[in-house]
Amino acid sequence: MADFFSDISPIKFEGADSTNPLAFKHYNPQEMILGKSMEDHLRFAACYWHNFCWDGADVFGSGTYGRPWLQAGDAMERAKQKADVAFEFFAKLGAPFYCFHDIDVAPEGDSISSYISNFAQMTDVLAQKQEETGMKLLWGTANVFSHPRYMSGAATNPDPEVFARAATQVFHAMNATKKLGGANYVLWGGREGYETLLNTDLKRERQQFGRFMNMVVEHKHKIGFDGLLLIEPKPQEPTKHQYDYDTATVYGFLKEFGLEKEFGVNIEANHATLSGHSFHHEIATAFALGIFGSIDANRGDAQLGWDTDQFPNSVEEMTLICYEILKNGGYTSGGFNFDTKLRRQSIDPADLFHGHIGGMDTCALGLKKAAALIENDFITKAKDKRYGGWEADLGKKIISGDYSLETLAGFAADKELAPKHVSGQQELLENQVNQAIFR
Amino acid sequence: MADFFSDISPIKFEGADSTNPLAFKHYNPQEMILGKSMEDHLRFAACYWHNFCWDGADVFGSGTYGRPWLQAGDAMERAKQKADVAFEFFAKLGAPFYCFHDIDVAPEGDSISSYISNFAQMTDVLAQKQEETGMKLLWGTANVFSHPRYMSGAATNPDPEVFARAATQVFHAMNATKKLGGANYVLWGGREGYETLLNTDLKRERQQFGRFMNMVVEHKHKIGFDGLLLIEPKPQEPTKHQYDYDTATVYGFLKEFGLEKEFGVNIEANHATLSGHSFHHEIATAFALGIFGSIDANRGDAQLGWDTDQFPNSVEEMTLICYEILKNGGYTSGGFNFDTKLRRQSIDPADLFHGHIGGMDTCALGLKKAAALIENDFITKAKDKRYGGWEADLGKKIISGDYSLETLAGFAADKELAPKHVSGQQELLENQVNQAIFR
Amino acid sequence: MADFFSDISPIKFEGADSTNPLAFKHYNPQEMILGKSMEDHLRFAACYWHNFCWDGADVFGSGTYGRPWLQAGDAMERAKQKADVAFEFFAKLGAPFYCFHDIDVAPEGDSISSYISNFAQMTDVLAQKQEETGMKLLWGTANVFSHPRYMSGAATNPDPEVFARAATQVFHAMNATKKLGGANYVLWGGREGYETLLNTDLKRERQQFGRFMNMVVEHKHKIGFDGLLLIEPKPQEPTKHQYDYDTATVYGFLKEFGLEKEFGVNIEANHATLSGHSFHHEIATAFALGIFGSIDANRGDAQLGWDTDQFPNSVEEMTLICYEILKNGGYTSGGFNFDTKLRRQSIDPADLFHGHIGGMDTCALGLKKAAALIENDFITKAKDKRYGGWEADLGKKIISGDYSLETLAGFAADKELAPKHVSGQQELLENQVNQAIFR
Amino acid sequence: MADFFSDISPIKFEGADSTNPLAFKHYNPQEMILGKSMEDHLRFAACYWHNFCWDGADVFGSGTYGRPWLQAGDAMERAKQKADVAFEFFAKLGAPFYCFHDIDVAPEGDSISSYISNFAQMTDVLAQKQEETGMKLLWGTANVFSHPRYMSGAATNPDPEVFARAATQVFHAMNATKKLGGANYVLWGGREGYETLLNTDLKRERQQFGRFMNMVVEHKHKIGFDGLLLIEPKPQEPTKHQYDYDTATVYGFLKEFGLEKEFGVNIEANHATLSGHSFHHEIATAFALGIFGSIDANRGDAQLGWDTDQFPNSVEEMTLICYEILKNGGYTSGGFNFDTKLRRQSIDPADLFHGHIGGMDTCALGLKKAAALIENDFITKAKDKRYGGWEADLGKKIISGDYSLETLAGFAADKELAPKHVSGQQELLENQVNQAIFR
Repeated sequence: MADFFSDISPIKFEGADSTNPLAFKHYNPQEMILGKSMEDHLRFAACYWHNFCWDGADVFGSGTYGRPWLQAGDAMERAKQKADVAFEFFAKLGAPFYCFHDIDVAPEGDSISSYISNFAQMTDVLAQKQEETGMKLLWGTANVFSHPRYMSGAATNPDPEVFARAATQVFHAMNATKKLGGANYVLWGGREGYETLLNTDLKRERQQFGRFMNMVVEHKHKIGFDGLLLIEPKPQEPTKHQYDYDTATVYGFLKEFGLEKEFGVNIEANHATLSGHSFHHEIATAFALGIFGSIDANRGDAQLGWDTDQFPNSVEEMTLICYEILKNGGYTSGGFNFDTKLRRQSIDPADLFHGHIGGMDTCALGLKKAAALIENDFITKAKDKRYGGWEADLGKKIISGDYSLETLAGFAADKELAPKHVSGQQELLENQVNQAIFR
Repeated sequence: MADFFSDISPIKFEGADSTNPLAFKHYNPQEMILGKSMEDHLRFAACYWHNFCWDGADVFGSGTYGRPWLQAGDAMERAKQKADVAFEFFAKLGAPFYCFHDIDVAPEGDSISSYISNFAQMTDVLAQKQEETGMKLLWGTANVFSHPRYMSGAATNPDPEVFARAATQVFHAMNATKKLGGANYVLWGGREGYETLLNTDLKRERQQFGRFMNMVVEHKHKIGFDGLLLIEPKPQEPTKHQYDYDTATVYGFLKEFGLEKEFGVNIEANHATLSGHSFHHEIATAFALGIFGSIDANRGDAQLGWDTDQFPNSVEEMTLICYEILKNGGYTSGGFNFDTKLRRQSIDPADLFHGHIGGMDTCALGLKKAAALIENDFITKAKDKRYGGWEADLGKKIISGDYSLETLAGFAADKELAPKHVSGQQELLENQVNQAIFR
Repeated sequence: MADFFSDISPIKFEGADSTNPLAFKHYNPQEMILGKSMEDHLRFAACYWHNFCWDGADVFGSGTYGRPWLQAGDAMERAKQKADVAFEFFAKLGAPFYCFHDIDVAPEGDSISSYISNFAQMTDVLAQKQEETGMKLLWGTANVFSHPRYMSGAATNPDPEVFARAATQVFHAMNATKKLGGANYVLWGGREGYETLLNTDLKRERQQFGRFMNMVVEHKHKIGFDGLLLIEPKPQEPTKHQYDYDTATVYGFLKEFGLEKEFGVNIEANHATLSGHSFHHEIATAFALGIFGSIDANRGDAQLGWDTDQFPNSVEEMTLICYEILKNGGYTSGGFNFDTKLRRQSIDPADLFHGHIGGMDTCALGLKKAAALIENDFITKAKDKRYGGWEADLGKKIISGDYSLETLAGFAADKELAPKHVSGQQELLENQVNQAIFR
Repeated sequence: MADFFSDISPIKFEGADSTNPLAFKHYNPQEMILGKSMEDHLRFAACYWHNFCWDGADVFGSGTYGRPWLQAGDAMERAKQKADVAFEFFAKLGAPFYCFHDIDVAPEGDSISSYISNFAQMTDVLAQKQEETGMKLLWGTANVFSHPRYMSGAATNPDPEVFARAATQVFHAMNATKKLGGANYVLWGGREGYETLLNTDLKRERQQFGRFMNMVVEHKHKIGFDGLLLIEPKPQEPTKHQYDYDTATVYGFLKEFGLEKEFGVNIEANHATLSGHSFHHEIATAFALGIFGSIDANRGDAQLGWDTDQFPNSVEEMTLICYEILKNGGYTSGGFNFDTKLRRQSIDPADLFHGHIGGMDTCALGLKKAAALIENDFITKAKDKRYGGWEADLGKKIISGDYSLETLAGFAADKELAPKHVSGQQELLENQVNQAIFR
């Protein structure tokens, strides 16, 4: 094991009044909420990439963190050192899950064979680490967007050899995910999109993408992977336009290629807002379309037009997210993953803990407040009343297809229908939610 | 006929050097472009609503135009006066088409029966006006968003009686459109969306919406209307979120309800940009998905977050739009409609002409420049070269399903594939487009 | 007195557990916070315009509220009826202040003389209402943006007669504000900006605006009005660009015309976010520049690009606003005004109360949480430590001008300065704030 | 000299019909426009940083260009190799100017003394290159934002030693700029801003910034640098908020510290749009405030919320920019600099030329179209007519201070002023501009 965080003890729940910044104030894993432990409700995961593969560089400046395992050196040694630090962190934090990309954990190498061999070795290392620490894998994925070969896309690349190269990585990453007992497998199409329509054949790239996703489904069934397949929507960045723009767009794609039963979405709060929607909207839409899967909880900045990947810290927002999840039966295989970046100025090892502790407490509070909403579910009551007419005669007949446009127009004319508009009571509902949060 | 524009003669083509502001500089209806007249390529329409039903009011101020036919008075008389002025304008402008909402042309009345009767009378007036002037109807539609009864939606209203009320209007508007020889029928869901998720059942409203659209399709076939049915995407405004957010979202909706063969989209430039996409993106996406229908050409303001509905005036942008349309075979039943508003300060009758003349010249120039792009089609050549691998062996096999993820990964490993990345040549292509525009 | 709200009793504080939606849960006017009553800290005001002069119309639809006093009728009678209802509401709500525009309270008339006479009569009515109810005036203002004459600006209009017309209104509105004991006078330049640079002389309009503001200052001193003069920044809407874009822009304008000691800003949360800043940013900037005045608390919608004027409901955000105000000594003459609109679907009279109750409880909670932050002021401690070097020798010398660029560069070279970067601790601070809010 | 671009001959003007992509179609340096050569009007500069110090990496992927001089190796040798390539490019391109940051051209070293020595050596190299090629320096600047020490700001850093370290770089960069005959010196405050208000003292940082800028002014005068000092506004990125947000904000800062006569602004098109303004707005505002300096011509993408730094390619936009510059007397010491990045997929050496050729042709066309606008200056005529009243009696008296609010209100009442609103003619003016562009 590493000793990078030697000053820091495993994080414990100490309650709302604790003055220890390195303790949970609200996340108490074994506390029961609506008959299930907080740990089982929230299914927290920490990520490998931002936490351990990034040194604080941004477009305008170099790394600020100075992580030892990211310095020059033997690649496999560095990978093992990184795994030591990562699992030291995971274990001390106390989130039950982690997530990774293939090349987060293993050196990419300079050929396919070295890629395969490096990744296989590191998969074994991860398996051993999981056993030692009890950590579980929420999801694995393949990074088919960082290498220059993917600059014009992976599955949607104009060169089919790049498609094949991406297939190689996804094949091995799916296999590794299965081997490590992963609960899900994620696909984020970071370069599946375009920079300019002048050099892009949208229809053709869509066909390529559809074929790729079908190959993924076939492979899943072939190897008997029983986790969920998840697509992660994002509207743009790095590309000008990404094909998996948002949940509704992904749904249309899935329907076109007959995949809507095979995939769910992995919704990221920050991607939701970049696509012009609220986080809540994306979650509610995914449930309405039957494709909800998992969550990357990292938020954006309301004034910035790029992915800032900050830790969630709005309990007000998270309460409604948790309410939506609880009302729809909770996570199945998904969970709250922190695809989060420390601020570039947060250079201390302890800052990694502060970020996650804050995020986990925010979700925990959101869960508790959501449970309170559920217990006196004025939202559902208000909706039931509001839509009551659709459970009565006229509404049922319309939905069941008893009316044509003509017969319904005739009915309206005969009755001289003059329906009165009724208050939507938005302010009242907002007040009631706030009352539940701040009681 | 009215005499509101008595100072203004019918607008003629006078060429690029004309100093007459009330003449076309570039739109020459009979000029042949790639074997078809400009008139038949562009299929211009002017609209009834912004031009003749709006008096210049905005949220912060009252009307500035002082149009006589919008003053108090007998509603049917005012409607006829409005029709006189509208057709005087349409005829003098020289666009071959117009568009209307039911309640643009006929007083809403205070009951369903007065609505039906007013609308029937005004449909006859319109028919006569069409005959007198030779004007044709590009599309009709029903306004099911302005009246208070629709404040919480029409088809997606929580009250099925409002659904029935909306069905009444759509029934009559479809019938009137058929009677007037309309080339298309449009549905814009201005209130089909939500203000807050707290009082909204997304899934239920989606079912209602799907049922409504199926009723529209059934009615179309029943009455033998052979125009296209068009949905007009918009992301928001007036609602917080509209269900027909953008083209890709509409596609998913159509697929869910088995409607993708029955509907196209009516894309508005301003709605495209409000949804976070370029106008070009929405057009290209609609063609890629096979649901392109018609265009509302009005643009937004790049700095403003609401629908400004300005006249198009970027030839640079319009060239690529026209290129996309030409490459895909041109309009079938659609056309360029100006769903445009004068600026609130443009209070002179002549300003109505200035706006449309500028918009029509912009489209005409775009068409001519696009034809030049087509004649030496370096864009298609560049794409053919770029995607060449997908027409060769490996690409064809992948698309046809010859490879599984495993066999393709095996192939890549056997060959130790190391594809080289190739320049996307964006700057070169942009330069070539500009050279064609500014030769 | 009116009897429009006859079903509603005066709103009382009932505490966090009250099940009465028409009661305050957190706003307890006489509760002492840091030695001052909540009422005196928060200085709430309700507004005349959105509450009583707007009927729920938006750009896409007509009014939904059906307020009786906005129907046709004798203008002065309607104005008095409106005043009755407004003061019935103000008195029942229990906010100590209200705000108005001249033409909210008095009919504009069809001439200057009728304007003056109507406004004078209604000023007397208001004075009497204030006496009867104990209500006080937080600020008055003149509406020089709604009438068509102001479509191209008031002070910045191309026509000096419009400037003179606006001066007339501001003159009378300032006098009325003084007469009614107003604590401040506000200027919002709703049409002071441009639609297109093609017809706009920025420099000239800036001179006009500077002259106008100097006239306002001179008049203030002449009549001995001892309230603050406030400019309300807004970036756009209704115009394409408003000159008072944001606080920093207003500051530059004030400095140019020597007005920075004479004006403060009235910051609106929704205008802040439309200008690309957080609400907190605008408040903190105003204090840093010494021009903080008052607040319009209405928020926007993070996904919408126009002024939605919703009631504030984020305690998380409001806590930091209140912290900033408390740290800077609290309001002097300003207060929290609700320049808020009900949602168009919130048509019930009770909804007016729900909106304000929610907004007031949000501010009250923000105040209490902010007081908790102040009591254990880790924020100030962290800043004092972070900037400590500027209170030590080198920092003091730099600020006091002891170093030139050359001597300081020499000093750095002599010492071979190699300062280490230090964590900014953003996540830790955010956690600590959340802990204080959700204890 | 390097031989990186050995395939590419010096770029020549070949006219609008040339089929040579590596030729200017419109930029003809010696062509006279309104009595001055295009070269002297446009004063083009290419930049060192994006072109030669960046390898195509973005936040989601590594470098794609594989530039030899950016590989590992002896730092000073690499710097000289880079200078060889850069000047080979500059000379072949035919822009008369270039721009650089200190650490673009010289290795930063690991101490102040190595920084000074490296930079001094490379300054000599640049001087020699300038002499060999005839290239001139448009401006120099210091990079005080990339190194980790500047992560929390340079002048506005909480640590005065960092301020001193930044002063060292600016001192040497100003001296080098003077030595190399630079026409201007630029300051871009890439980290002068904040990430969170929780750890930021706005007022204190503003004082630091003001002191720094005064030191720069003092040093300019001391060394007799007669170029302009320029601040480059940007709203955000990399920081959450940058203090030099936009032109109007910079103006307020300059006024506060008595610097408005000493500084101009270097306006970047992409920064303008990120701040919520049009490029045209920022230019027009700078002229109206008397602080226009120079331009970074690189544009953004209308759908993306970060700095894409694309080459300008809208002649429509550039025409109005050039019109504004010509109307205000043209550049003094400023020019059009391309602070532009190739797209990450544009990996060929020739792409560097394509990008700049397109940008220069766009500006050249803009200049020619603007000259056409000036020759028949309907814009100025329309403005003179529109504001005529301010040159007549009432307008002059108002501006000169003859009226108080009271006497002006009295005048308006006596005359019963009822000014009529007049069309702003926006559509007509837009049409006329387009006619001039597309004649």
